[in-house]
Amino acid sequence: MSSHYDEFFFFGDTLIAETREVILGLWNRGNIASSIKDDDTPVSEVDLQCEELVRDRIRSRFPAHGVIGEEHGEDSPNSEFVWTIDPIDGTQNLVNRIPTFGTILSLLHNGTPVLGWIDHPVLGDLLRGGPGIGVTKNGVPVTVKDLQTPHLTANDIVGTNCPATFARGGHEGVLATILAYHPHIRMYYDVYSHSLTITGSLAAMVEYNLKIWDLAATKALIEGAGGTYLEIGADDSPGKPRAYHAVFGKGRAVNLLVGAISGVPEGCI
Amino acid sequence: MSSHYDEFFFFGDTLIAETREVILGLWNRGNIASSIKDDDTPVSEVDLQCEELVRDRIRSRFPAHGVIGEEHGEDSPNSEFVWTIDPIDGTQNLVNRIPTFGTILSLLHNGTPVLGWIDHPVLGDLLRGGPGIGVTKNGVPVTVKDLQTPHLTANDIVGTNCPATFARGGHEGVLATILAYHPHIRMYYDVYSHSLTITGSLAAMVEYNLKIWDLAATKALIEGAGGTYLEIGADDSPGKPRAYHAVFGKGRAVNLLVGAISGVPEGCI
Repeated sequence: MSSHYDEFFFFGDTLIAETREVILGLWNRGNIASSIKDDDTPVSEVDLQCEELVRDRIRSRFPAHGVIGEEHGEDSPNSEFVWTIDPIDGTQNLVNRIPTFGTILSLLHNGTPVLGWIDHPVLGDLLRGGPGIGVTKNGVPVTVKDLQTPHLTANDIVGTNCPATFARGGHEGVLATILAYHPHIRMYYDVYSHSLTITGSLAAMVEYNLKIWDLAATKALIEGAGGTYLEIGADDSPGKPRAYHAVFGKGRAVNLLVGAISGVPEGCI
Repeated sequence: MSSHYDEFFFFGDTLIAETREVILGLWNRGNIASSIKDDDTPVSEVDLQCEELVRDRIRSRFPAHGVIGEEHGEDSPNSEFVWTIDPIDGTQNLVNRIPTFGTILSLLHNGTPVLGWIDHPVLGDLLRGGPGIGVTKNGVPVTVKDLQTPHLTANDIVGTNCPATFARGGHEGVLATILAYHPHIRMYYDVYSHSLTITGSLAAMVEYNLKIWDLAATKALIEGAGGTYLEIGADDSPGKPRAYHAVFGKGRAVNLLVGAISGVPEGCI
């Protein structure tokens, strides 16, 4: 790993330490003010405070770097180094006091995710790392091991997202396919499902209509932990950021799910 | 609350303290041995150890009481007082190291759940209480407030179970109805969804094909916290315990969901 990335890795850690403190302060205070955005998803005061903090810190320390964030759009998105930030992934969970929401931070180098952080402040769980440098959860290395069987069994769990997420872009049929293909499904809605996949608890995760700030850290972390990340499509709508579809997790589980989704016989992807 | 129940309430607390210690000991040790049962669900060494411990303690302290448990069947199920125990609800999660699984304990008096405990050892969360005595989470009172709107909104979350659970008894159509009725769904598979409903994080939870040891504590706790619990059906199969269907949570949300499931116009249940 180059010393250039090292500097960014430790800088990212300081950003996460700061956002965690802001989030826990507001969480422990009690009720969190929120409103519903145009896309029918909520945004809270926590989201806004954290993203402003992260943008300020990056602007001061690395003025040549770009930033793409969920709440405040793009800043120099074609720079060599670009940070992505989703201050609260799962605001709907946060405002309902479900502690699985998380903060997602990544660093792209020429468009490729090279470092990722997923932090769950209330659960006290931080995943950090990237391709070539490995991944840790709270300092302990984690790896994604492949399935030990040719097919998914009743011991294997697949994560996916809620119907509202698939409905954007009309992908309800994909959700129905997944539910029918493997009945041991979890829906957490937020980035907790990504963390569980990176630590090997879920066999794989199927996500539709996610933005770059939702997925870039996960790609870096899954690949860093030895798993597979496959982008299987994207939707473009006028005036909106590109919406990506991806399957990630244990290599064979990803292969089986992509086969089921695309209607291709297993093993032929 | 009668002093008679008091004695049982404190006794139940000691049972939960003991099962929590056993579970955390095995969880922290690492890999947990498990096998798949005839009903295609896993059972682990943790389940068996905990249920044996609870049965022993009840037999010594209250020999006239009955016990109904997931792993070792019924013991004097027609006694005036009967305990139900599910040592690990969500063994599939436990063996995949997803910390939302829990221990469920309840006391029935003449068949009615009067006390309930849901313990999440790894998350460190214990819910305890019952009708007339209130409910606490880690010692802090919790209450279920009703919806503030006539319909469910994008801020309201509904929990349900995974396709495998609905498939027992052929209730896949109910799952499809729920997914179509309200797109903000969570599927945790284990009793974590009950805890989130009892603390008001979920608007309501729809469960199909659950046994008495899965539901009795939840009924006591939901009612104790001011929410609504509706049993909406049951399936009997030869040689198997009765499988119950229930909707519980905020009163209006329960009403709306039962209406959607039964095809009755909203507000007419």
